[in-house]
Amino acid sequence: MTHMSPLIEELIAAFKILPGVGPKTAQRLALYVLQKNRMGGQQLARVLQEAILAVKQCEQCRNLSETPVCRQCANHNRNEKLLCVVESPIDVLAIEHTASFSGHYFVLHGHLSPIDGVGPDDIGVPLLQKHLQSGRIEELIIATNPTVEGEATAFYLAQTAKDCQVKATRIAHGVPMGGELEYIDGFTLSRALMARAPMHHD
Amino acid sequence: MTHMSPLIEELIAAFKILPGVGPKTAQRLALYVLQKNRMGGQQLARVLQEAILAVKQCEQCRNLSETPVCRQCANHNRNEKLLCVVESPIDVLAIEHTASFSGHYFVLHGHLSPIDGVGPDDIGVPLLQKHLQSGRIEELIIATNPTVEGEATAFYLAQTAKDCQVKATRIAHGVPMGGELEYIDGFTLSRALMARAPMHHD
Repeated sequence: MTHMSPLIEELIAAFKILPGVGPKTAQRLALYVLQKNRMGGQQLARVLQEAILAVKQCEQCRNLSETPVCRQCANHNRNEKLLCVVESPIDVLAIEHTASFSGHYFVLHGHLSPIDGVGPDDIGVPLLQKHLQSGRIEELIIATNPTVEGEATAFYLAQTAKDCQVKATRIAHGVPMGGELEYIDGFTLSRALMARAPMHHD
Repeated sequence: MTHMSPLIEELIAAFKILPGVGPKTAQRLALYVLQKNRMGGQQLARVLQEAILAVKQCEQCRNLSETPVCRQCANHNRNEKLLCVVESPIDVLAIEHTASFSGHYFVLHGHLSPIDGVGPDDIGVPLLQKHLQSGRIEELIIATNPTVEGEATAFYLAQTAKDCQVKATRIAHGVPMGGELEYIDGFTLSRALMARAPMHHD
């Protein structure tokens, strides 16, 4: 049942491709642009088209980039001995926002998932191996998600690093800062207990 | 501080013009399109541009339409004796979805708001008067929002209808169907009590 002119219905349908946007939100977004912000809408359309055409993967780290080599890889002030592997570009953003890592990144764009037919080649392992074999990298920091697939991928990458004689580390899992023990799930809590570290008294 | 390539940052900024989209959501939307749905993103960009260029206001009812006269106004099966005034195109959609109204609409695109300099001319009153004076309309159903401005606008429009000797009615306000009295605000409840209607025993 269509109640609006075909183009408006088409615009509502187009907004529904976005994650988390259902029929009601799509309606609201489409009418907002047409009623209140045509300039903003035009800008969004223009940048969307430009970015979709220009943004590809960085040749070195596979992060999204409009230049052949991304900003982080091109930045010679960064520590090239440290390589941090993440599942997705959004993880790079999250780590960059902490300002506590100054090495390079490697983006898998997913994780190993035999059931879905995602193997090592799909997540860029051959390119990662080339980096590991270059002799430049001293530590591979594995920051895949703490999910079943992320853990399996981490183990696989650790083995890959070992084969190239590069040290592999995994980011720590445990009780989040500011969290109360009472509300932490048992799995996280038992992991935090197992991974306990000595306290320093200097 | 920018962590991504300029075009991606620009795309994130462009998504932020949408209502309800903050920095985190904008990031998620931009990366989703670039990583997982470039076809959908291209379609969204294309339809956005087309709709922004083509969609204007219907000459008769001021609803958004890509044709000079919108679907509802062009439909001769609808009851042209009933005219329902609403604040926004989204209200037309909401009423159409109920399938309980078959008359014509008139869209104000706002409400009277002297503080913001919004007067009768801005909400299309002159065009509405022309309709009311045509002798075609028997009832003006005023469906502005039950807010202070919506109520004030409703009173103004009722007077306009009276001047043109057209009957004006207001949609009912009261306890929503399925609601429990316990949770209804006092203002709505007292309005529901005042507007009580006799029950029919036939």
